[in-house]
Amino acid sequence: MTLSPSAQLQLTESGELRHFLTVDGLPRPLLERIIDTANSFVVVGNQEVKKVPLLRGKTVVNLFFENSTRTRSTFELAAKRLSADVLNLDIKTSATSKGESLLDTLRNLRAMHSDMFVVRHSQSGAPHFIAEQVTPNVAIINAGDGRHAHPTQAMLDMLTIHRHKGAFDQLKVAIVGDILHSRVARDQVHALATLGCKDIRLIGPNTLLPAEAASLGVTVYTDMDMGLEEVDVIIMLRLQTERMDSAFLPSASEYYQVYGLNRQRLAKAKPDAIVMHPGPINRGIEIESEVADGSQSLILDQVGYGIAIRMAVMSMAMSGQMQERQAAEVI
Amino acid sequence: MTLSPSAQLQLTESGELRHFLTVDGLPRPLLERIIDTANSFVVVGNQEVKKVPLLRGKTVVNLFFENSTRTRSTFELAAKRLSADVLNLDIKTSATSKGESLLDTLRNLRAMHSDMFVVRHSQSGAPHFIAEQVTPNVAIINAGDGRHAHPTQAMLDMLTIHRHKGAFDQLKVAIVGDILHSRVARDQVHALATLGCKDIRLIGPNTLLPAEAASLGVTVYTDMDMGLEEVDVIIMLRLQTERMDSAFLPSASEYYQVYGLNRQRLAKAKPDAIVMHPGPINRGIEIESEVADGSQSLILDQVGYGIAIRMAVMSMAMSGQMQERQAAEVI
Amino acid sequence: MTLSPSAQLQLTESGELRHFLTVDGLPRPLLERIIDTANSFVVVGNQEVKKVPLLRGKTVVNLFFENSTRTRSTFELAAKRLSADVLNLDIKTSATSKGESLLDTLRNLRAMHSDMFVVRHSQSGAPHFIAEQVTPNVAIINAGDGRHAHPTQAMLDMLTIHRHKGAFDQLKVAIVGDILHSRVARDQVHALATLGCKDIRLIGPNTLLPAEAASLGVTVYTDMDMGLEEVDVIIMLRLQTERMDSAFLPSASEYYQVYGLNRQRLAKAKPDAIVMHPGPINRGIEIESEVADGSQSLILDQVGYGIAIRMAVMSMAMSGQMQERQAAEVI
Repeated sequence: MTLSPSAQLQLTESGELRHFLTVDGLPRPLLERIIDTANSFVVVGNQEVKKVPLLRGKTVVNLFFENSTRTRSTFELAAKRLSADVLNLDIKTSATSKGESLLDTLRNLRAMHSDMFVVRHSQSGAPHFIAEQVTPNVAIINAGDGRHAHPTQAMLDMLTIHRHKGAFDQLKVAIVGDILHSRVARDQVHALATLGCKDIRLIGPNTLLPAEAASLGVTVYTDMDMGLEEVDVIIMLRLQTERMDSAFLPSASEYYQVYGLNRQRLAKAKPDAIVMHPGPINRGIEIESEVADGSQSLILDQVGYGIAIRMAVMSMAMSGQMQERQAAEVI
Repeated sequence: MTLSPSAQLQLTESGELRHFLTVDGLPRPLLERIIDTANSFVVVGNQEVKKVPLLRGKTVVNLFFENSTRTRSTFELAAKRLSADVLNLDIKTSATSKGESLLDTLRNLRAMHSDMFVVRHSQSGAPHFIAEQVTPNVAIINAGDGRHAHPTQAMLDMLTIHRHKGAFDQLKVAIVGDILHSRVARDQVHALATLGCKDIRLIGPNTLLPAEAASLGVTVYTDMDMGLEEVDVIIMLRLQTERMDSAFLPSASEYYQVYGLNRQRLAKAKPDAIVMHPGPINRGIEIESEVADGSQSLILDQVGYGIAIRMAVMSMAMSGQMQERQAAEVI
Repeated sequence: MTLSPSAQLQLTESGELRHFLTVDGLPRPLLERIIDTANSFVVVGNQEVKKVPLLRGKTVVNLFFENSTRTRSTFELAAKRLSADVLNLDIKTSATSKGESLLDTLRNLRAMHSDMFVVRHSQSGAPHFIAEQVTPNVAIINAGDGRHAHPTQAMLDMLTIHRHKGAFDQLKVAIVGDILHSRVARDQVHALATLGCKDIRLIGPNTLLPAEAASLGVTVYTDMDMGLEEVDVIIMLRLQTERMDSAFLPSASEYYQVYGLNRQRLAKAKPDAIVMHPGPINRGIEIESEVADGSQSLILDQVGYGIAIRMAVMSMAMSGQMQERQAAEVI
């Protein structure tokens, strides 16, 4: 089996995770192993002592080129629960302002014997670039890059579906909203398809659907009621208002009238359908409060699952790195 | 015995601390237990290894809606010395700027399996609101809310008095300064009264005394020399200049002339009276440097006691939460 | 042997390190012990678990009055790898803004049972002042003060030379660049001389050489080719453009033409000469990229050595403090 260039970058020769940049190209058994590993960490989150020693003595650097308190916090907690030492770096205020290039900054951080960079960047592809340039020996975890990917978010959605709906192959899953500007929708589609889901639906206005939607093997709906028909899972996206040109969308209230998830629309789905959202939610814009807080909503459960998924990919990538280091020493 | 609503919120059914929001309404044996527990942590502060494992594997979130480096630092140190994982969140720069409501932010933080929020807020009552909404399972510690309360500060003052003056019932205690704008004076009065102190004196200009002073069971003095007569304890308050309307007070130097603690005024108190101040001190405005640095001053000792008190209420509230969690599991 | 006032301040009565403020005046055996201790910590940086318990339960406060993410990060990592609890304080935003004096802030931090302050300040002498005022019981580590000193940087350079060139007495060492504004050049000269180096050369334009250069026992060169002749070690300094008045220097490109290190100039040195730079490097201004990234360059190795040196001085100063505390208790 030949791997895609992206998969080759992310995997060791024996197929272990060594970076986590995108779900695209990762084989199904690996995604399943991430979910299984995260499942065991969900238990850790409920223990009295929420700590395992898997990353003890390891240095994790949170490299945030773009502010995101929520994502940074979940990665910081995940790293601390794995017993790592954590260094938070806001790159805007750091050495780059002294005229140092990004690459020199990264080389310096690696030279401090850092073991892992958690990278958030406004530009698509930045974590890939870093993984290519800084390898070997430092695991790169993508915490969101531009519109490209946010793979831990996509995988926590898969964990949520798996825990509440079981196997993927018989499920109908709808992704609703601003697909075009979402950094997570692409990874969600890749993950769902890889895990065997055969009925993936993208729902949104034409202006917020990507041109290549058809080629992704999904069905596209502009009519939300039709798209939600008999689905098992509804994944609402955040309206990235801060990233949107006003031309795409007349107003938030008009959007809500057509694509907001309310009780009437939810009734189109199966009675036991689950409702997901990455947060923070815009109440009354993407979703009605009664639905967000209702019995079918798993929005808050997703937060805890997010820490479990981050613990899973961090410990698995570190384990892949350690194997490579040991192999290099033998040679 | 019926408890006040505030006490009910703070205590478990068996009377253990589960939140620490205000001293008001807490029973005397509980305040004495806080002091005793803190006393044992004073010893920890002097050990070579200043660490106990009481909060190991627990997640403490410092939720500071208002900047206070000093208070945040003492809570952070207290949590780390209890072996907790600490997450510092400056809420102004976080998800709320993406349009998320405070309540959604709190629910998200709880969903990360946080065990304790240390809350600082400019609005009175914010920690109560959070405790009511976020309960169960997360202990809320008030680190100062508006003019309402700053109970760990009040209790560290009680610890200071207890360690240096013993039992409260025979003591004369004066609280001097800007009572009206102080977030700690109210809690100090409650704590002193609960612990048996029968002679509590508030000293300050009429404009800085609260209207309800008389109803608190204290004696009010506008003449500082009279108020300090034969007292055992002098608690100076900080002049909250940043919170004060210019109309209340003509000038800092005029204030010092009438209510500044200098050696002449200190001589009115008992010869072995102790001098306290929450810091940071305004030298030459509230207090003369010779007094602040003199042999009767305990101002720097209070800082270390503050960490001990914070360790005490954090570990006690966590213990109360754990008992509730276990009781919930049995049911 | 009588010690200089600076050495007396830094050493206990039995000659152990208790502060680390400047290399100036420290005896050769002590500098050698720092290098030996750091050498053992270089090994720790390559271990799977990069952690030793030497500062467990100790509180290290990073007191940065001047922003320096790079230096702060290396001290933070060093402290965490020694298992200390770390508190980062940006002093501009802290209590001093409430009108508290620096000295009161420091006394408060000491009263929190802090064990060590890592101090960065734009004013020369600030860490000395703090060590004089806050002693006893708190170890002060200078992380760079004005133009005066940056002793951990100087010692990491000594560690680099020692590991790659062995004994100092036969070495020819050139320090190149903006000697006048460098906070590290002075400490480098002191360290080299103390460790037995007999041929120390300062190379730079007259406007960037300090007036007292001659009195330091070094040779001064304004011609870089002459200065580099047959040297074993080339230490490039950073061009402190942010600290430089335009009058000193016509332009960066003119500077590079005369004092930039390129391959032609490097060829004047011994064939196995090593190239060092504190970072961040200004490519094409102080140094040609081919040299910075070339086989003779140790620039990235220096970063890891920097953490080892910081671990060494932190653990040694803490050990000196503990001995003093125990001696004080016996008395």
